[in-house]
Amino acid sequence: MKQFINLKENIVAEAVDGVVAASGGRLARLDGYPHVRVVLRTNWDKSKVALVSGGGSGHEPAHGGFVGEGMLTAAVCGDVFASPSVDAVLAGILAVTGPAGCLLIVKNYTGDRLNFGLAAERARAFGLNVSMVIVDDDIALPHLPQARGLAGTLMVHKIAGALAENGADLDAVKAAAERVIAGTHTIGMSLDTCTVPGAPKDERIQPGKAELGLGIHGESGVEQVDYTDAKGAMAMVVERLSSSMTKGKPHVALLNNLGGASVLEMQILAHELRNSSIGAQLKYIIGPASMMTSLEMRGFSFSVYPADTEDLMALKSPVPLAAWPGLSGFGAVEVAELPDGLRPIKPMPSDHPATRAFVTRCCEVFIEAEDDLNALDARAGDGDTGTTLAGASRALIAAMDRLPLADHTQLYRAIGLELSQTMGGSSGVLLAIFFAAAGDAASSGQSLREALKAGLIRMQEIGGARPGDRTMIDALQPALEILADGMDKAARAAREGADRTAQMDTAKAGRSAYINPEQLRGHVDPGAEAVARLFERLSA
Amino acid sequence: MKQFINLKENIVAEAVDGVVAASGGRLARLDGYPHVRVVLRTNWDKSKVALVSGGGSGHEPAHGGFVGEGMLTAAVCGDVFASPSVDAVLAGILAVTGPAGCLLIVKNYTGDRLNFGLAAERARAFGLNVSMVIVDDDIALPHLPQARGLAGTLMVHKIAGALAENGADLDAVKAAAERVIAGTHTIGMSLDTCTVPGAPKDERIQPGKAELGLGIHGESGVEQVDYTDAKGAMAMVVERLSSSMTKGKPHVALLNNLGGASVLEMQILAHELRNSSIGAQLKYIIGPASMMTSLEMRGFSFSVYPADTEDLMALKSPVPLAAWPGLSGFGAVEVAELPDGLRPIKPMPSDHPATRAFVTRCCEVFIEAEDDLNALDARAGDGDTGTTLAGASRALIAAMDRLPLADHTQLYRAIGLELSQTMGGSSGVLLAIFFAAAGDAASSGQSLREALKAGLIRMQEIGGARPGDRTMIDALQPALEILADGMDKAARAAREGADRTAQMDTAKAGRSAYINPEQLRGHVDPGAEAVARLFERLSA
Repeated sequence: MKQFINLKENIVAEAVDGVVAASGGRLARLDGYPHVRVVLRTNWDKSKVALVSGGGSGHEPAHGGFVGEGMLTAAVCGDVFASPSVDAVLAGILAVTGPAGCLLIVKNYTGDRLNFGLAAERARAFGLNVSMVIVDDDIALPHLPQARGLAGTLMVHKIAGALAENGADLDAVKAAAERVIAGTHTIGMSLDTCTVPGAPKDERIQPGKAELGLGIHGESGVEQVDYTDAKGAMAMVVERLSSSMTKGKPHVALLNNLGGASVLEMQILAHELRNSSIGAQLKYIIGPASMMTSLEMRGFSFSVYPADTEDLMALKSPVPLAAWPGLSGFGAVEVAELPDGLRPIKPMPSDHPATRAFVTRCCEVFIEAEDDLNALDARAGDGDTGTTLAGASRALIAAMDRLPLADHTQLYRAIGLELSQTMGGSSGVLLAIFFAAAGDAASSGQSLREALKAGLIRMQEIGGARPGDRTMIDALQPALEILADGMDKAARAAREGADRTAQMDTAKAGRSAYINPEQLRGHVDPGAEAVARLFERLSA
Repeated sequence: MKQFINLKENIVAEAVDGVVAASGGRLARLDGYPHVRVVLRTNWDKSKVALVSGGGSGHEPAHGGFVGEGMLTAAVCGDVFASPSVDAVLAGILAVTGPAGCLLIVKNYTGDRLNFGLAAERARAFGLNVSMVIVDDDIALPHLPQARGLAGTLMVHKIAGALAENGADLDAVKAAAERVIAGTHTIGMSLDTCTVPGAPKDERIQPGKAELGLGIHGESGVEQVDYTDAKGAMAMVVERLSSSMTKGKPHVALLNNLGGASVLEMQILAHELRNSSIGAQLKYIIGPASMMTSLEMRGFSFSVYPADTEDLMALKSPVPLAAWPGLSGFGAVEVAELPDGLRPIKPMPSDHPATRAFVTRCCEVFIEAEDDLNALDARAGDGDTGTTLAGASRALIAAMDRLPLADHTQLYRAIGLELSQTMGGSSGVLLAIFFAAAGDAASSGQSLREALKAGLIRMQEIGGARPGDRTMIDALQPALEILADGMDKAARAAREGADRTAQMDTAKAGRSAYINPEQLRGHVDPGAEAVARLFERLSA
């Protein structure tokens, strides 16, 4: 399995260096590689209670990403899914603990309990005031008294962090952390396993199955369940978690990406959570975001906590940490009215025999050229330029009676609107833009020719084609440039422009851009040919 | 391929609802499902220039996640990898555009250019002042004049957004956007393809290969390259991008997760970027974070922009958006000195014949019991409890001359330290914690018995085992409880406690927790047996 890593033994040290380098000087790491990998705040004066967390790596941004003002003081990083050593934890404690003491926030895994626990004892032997709390928010294994620590740990980091930052003493911070731990419950679901660096992927989740109640170290879920869709997944998770919730109390939800679900999927899961049976009880949400991941596991976890007013203040207080998504209200979707004007105002129809005859003649040119243009287009595309133009022309003739033929300013826009509704593909939109922009120019007082030029400029701007790119513009632009000198000269310029496209062997815009030069050479671009024929027939 | 989605046709609407529901009332969406999917700010009074972006979905958090004060005013969301309709874009423009006008920020794809372009024309017909910029930051296809729009779009959103929020007029905002676009360059690399919902996964990237110069719609990269490691990947990307950089000018880097790389991998890539040939020229970084994703593609993109002072202010200005990771300094890794005290202070050795004899006698108990304890442990574990305890005992006897035998307070800690260094596994750490905590209590003046009880409490706290959990505690606790009444009673209590473990058929802590009850019943726990034998021999 390919991963963006280098030597397996350097993964954590390199990742820690990445976090520290991108911290803008907020963070440092302790000397002591390879075994001591500790991220810590640089602006730390030890006057407040220090919060130290950590554990095995592979859960990023936890915990290094949560080191900073208002959350952790230091994070001790073990190898992927392996507890850091006692010495590493002790180094972290000694580096940040001052007279106010230190609280260790440890997820409930034997290795972490023991190593953090012994490090705490050693630190106490130096006279430091060190306490420890164990986060056990997992509800997947109700019969085991030692529930695992999962993403609910973030609630503890944030609430204890806000208290410590505000100067609370160690006993108060510890009591708050224990209260949050007691009230926080989490369960997860995954569609696929994660890939531990250097190990083969465990392909234990079969098609159509998902794992419910999983841990964050690649261990198997409590059960494999049938997977149908996002709604069903959320319903199962909610069903397990709802019995752990305090009836009648509003809760904070924490929606965590285990690493490999797309942001799009997480947004859909947020929608399903809001629409679930407990949605109305979840007044606030943290996420969806990747907070406590299991490498690139395609799954999510969902935590709940019945926060009181003080907790909410702590959860809301801003921290300068990109990894912390903040606390947000979670509520009904506000739907704003569609603005007026989506139905374009159709101009009042009017007649003008000369204009009717002129527009009809233009349309007939394209109808007559249908087969020739299709044949040219077959060289470079799917041979439908003629059919597209002829179809639009026939539709325009049929629409003649509802066009404002006597109002030339409005006529441009009306033609643009008709074309955008009857002509498929990019060319329909481009011609609609051409006529709409020309109408815009005409309505601000520009002449017929100037308006057409304005349309051309906008069409080039939007479509991106320039002269020489082997498009209709190669005929249209020279024709409009010289149109003031008469239709004959315009027709000649259009024809010369169209013929030049046969020498262009690299198309730079439109579909021909993807065609082999040999297929193009010697053949006129069908759009340019259509323009040339139009001017030639109008000048005849 | 399993994904957290429901019906394919509802993906985008459900995701938009998820974003709006979790916005705490900051965002609304326009009425007009299923075709009009527009996210917009609720606190918007149209007095400033509106910024509207969007395009196909599948790039979340772009663009709905960037709607908010100081960035976008609205985002128009098409289907996955498909441009939104002209009507949807027009609805977005009409909903948010006031007298100050509107800037459309569009990634350079034909569908987006045309649909946003025509919508702009329609909006102009209503008298609205609408401008449009096209982001084309991709450098993967240098021969194509129409470079694609990639994650560099975020630079435009942020800088233009800050100017608009500060009241700049439309011309100024557009000019800034065009300047940022001209200076921003991006290239991406991926190890795997993304999975378009409802379509089979395109398995075109073979083992050992990566795609360089990829787009964000599942299209193939410009070339397949050999993949070695993160360092090599970053070197290739940097090599392509460095020629687009302005010599001598500091640049902002934007490091974007294409969706499926783990946070750990992205941190390693940040480390490699900092250590690359251009690392010193990258003074600031945005990310690493998922900003412009391609569903769950396991890849990254890297953008550079030579920001001037005004740009930096705009990039730095805070926005209330979890999706925006902020601008951070990018620099050398600050390494803090390891704290003193990692080498535990060894107590001064001293002799005390009675104590030497007592400790030696205790050790001999365990050495003698080695085979019996191993036999008991074979029922529930790997049969090494006896060997572990005997080994530690022999080591302690060998260490007798460096122990502070005459200073009983220090002796506890010294024994704990020896055990943690010589005894493997959880039991070594737990006994080290037991003696360290007892030493802590003794040094604060508690009696021998009280100190041992304190050790027991701490060991239970850290290890998590309670009486009845079938561990050594089932013998140790009753013995210490009654120790004040004499060693005989303590020995009897320890024996009774140990014998009770034979009736416990569910272990709740330690390794036996994973063993079938039938295997346990009738057999005394080896740890409890060791404790019972110790007290029995001491009382004899």
